[in-house]
Amino acid sequence: MSLAVVGSIAFDSVKTPFGERSRMLGGSAVHFSLAASFFTEVRVVGPVGDDFGDAEHAVLRERGVNTDDIEHVEGGQTFFWAGHYEYDLNTAHTDDTQLNVFGDFQPKLSDASKSADVLFLANIQPDLQREVREQCTGTRLAGLDSMNLWIDTARDSLVRTIRGVDLIFMNDAELRQLTEEANLVRAARAVMDIGPRVVIAKQGEYGAALFTPDEFFALPAYPLETVNDPTGAGDSFAGGFLGYLASQGSEDDTTLRRAMTYGSVLASFNVEEFGTERVQRLTRAEIDARFEEFRRMTTLEASQ
Amino acid sequence: MSLAVVGSIAFDSVKTPFGERSRMLGGSAVHFSLAASFFTEVRVVGPVGDDFGDAEHAVLRERGVNTDDIEHVEGGQTFFWAGHYEYDLNTAHTDDTQLNVFGDFQPKLSDASKSADVLFLANIQPDLQREVREQCTGTRLAGLDSMNLWIDTARDSLVRTIRGVDLIFMNDAELRQLTEEANLVRAARAVMDIGPRVVIAKQGEYGAALFTPDEFFALPAYPLETVNDPTGAGDSFAGGFLGYLASQGSEDDTTLRRAMTYGSVLASFNVEEFGTERVQRLTRAEIDARFEEFRRMTTLEASQ
Repeated sequence: MSLAVVGSIAFDSVKTPFGERSRMLGGSAVHFSLAASFFTEVRVVGPVGDDFGDAEHAVLRERGVNTDDIEHVEGGQTFFWAGHYEYDLNTAHTDDTQLNVFGDFQPKLSDASKSADVLFLANIQPDLQREVREQCTGTRLAGLDSMNLWIDTARDSLVRTIRGVDLIFMNDAELRQLTEEANLVRAARAVMDIGPRVVIAKQGEYGAALFTPDEFFALPAYPLETVNDPTGAGDSFAGGFLGYLASQGSEDDTTLRRAMTYGSVLASFNVEEFGTERVQRLTRAEIDARFEEFRRMTTLEASQ
Repeated sequence: MSLAVVGSIAFDSVKTPFGERSRMLGGSAVHFSLAASFFTEVRVVGPVGDDFGDAEHAVLRERGVNTDDIEHVEGGQTFFWAGHYEYDLNTAHTDDTQLNVFGDFQPKLSDASKSADVLFLANIQPDLQREVREQCTGTRLAGLDSMNLWIDTARDSLVRTIRGVDLIFMNDAELRQLTEEANLVRAARAVMDIGPRVVIAKQGEYGAALFTPDEFFALPAYPLETVNDPTGAGDSFAGGFLGYLASQGSEDDTTLRRAMTYGSVLASFNVEEFGTERVQRLTRAEIDARFEEFRRMTTLEASQ
């Protein structure tokens, strides 16, 4: 089944204790698309400026991502973010944000994107997310990511937007802030009361937890000795998750658990190197091998 | 196989957003013993004062814990701790500590305790832990807990003590602080380089992770909607873990994974109510039912 993502396409300058890169290809829609591309046909929707050239398009196209709905704004510049991480790598510190063409972004979706079976609304202003959701009348399954900024500044709009989606991906602190529930289990139930049937709590170095009305499932993060750049981990997770889900055409409990695992696999590869470096040369065989490692390291009976 | 624990026996006054209790029976050796008592014969070693009476002894004896090595210091008072937790329940804030008889504690172990097959050195001054370890010539397997205070004030002694044990239970931050490694996988390896073959990273609401030279295993915490008092969770975890291990007489990978699960089960019951309230009336059937729930909620293929 087809999958469309609406979100940011960006250039990122990132510095971590382990190195730095200038103006790498980044943005939520990019990380999501590359991760999802291993499982299904992906269409990416978002604006870019004159500085977004053939090389950037090629990164997406080489992974089979459909870029027809990337909107080139003549005379504009692509969204730019600069940030750094301290030793613990848990918190991104923003040094510079230039919205550029993203500041006036009005999503225009082709008919093909509007009728994609699965839709991911990456972390953008909730009014825009809702506008996209309402255009996508062919969508069977919609997921959404958001952040503390929108809980602080556009809470009512965000809640209305959440009402229209099936899955939500947020980190623990955001779920707690959104629902004003200190207990994560209660926070997840409070989100389900708004609308979504599936709540995914992203927990950074601790992995992720899945809540549905009847089930709980949790997965640790893959134990990496080297993490170079956590930027894009959450979007890679969502991409692996929804890409796999779209490829299956079902959302039963086992499929959701496998989707959690593929999401964790893609996130783990993403953070091993800077930006999209690792995922660009990733293979399906590597993904499947790490999926099996996840199974092995979470199964109560150790394999010999 | 028999199990001995050396640590604090205490009265705790605890206040959380969900209630408060005065002078409950507590202390690391008590929480550990009660948890371990569901699996094996446990001997508890530690000092108490005149205020420690029949009622307190009875709590331990009713669970079959051997209290012969509880040392009654005439004219003394039992260790007392008062603390509170904020809404997130992650951090204990100490309001009062009265060491009392614990201040002059010189562990005196009976021959039966010295020859216990499994020994747990709960979180006390590392010189004392090492002294106990050296007395226990019959011990086949020794585990240790410690804390940031001893890393700050008695690091060399702590490292020497760690050299003599087989398993270590510490939280993530303490493992990182001890080894000066920001990455948890590297921190665990650095601890193994000191001596222990098994490193258990306690991760609070995120569960726990197990590192051995060849294996990694992680388990989420049980998803509770009601957590009343986290005091003693770590010791209950260690008690469930080592109690189960002692009952098996083996430390192969599957046994260690099952021990992780029993540890998590006991910790989850411990935090549901204040102090030892919940564990005192716990049954083995309840433990086994929750063990199966853990298996269900961490298995990739959902059961229907």
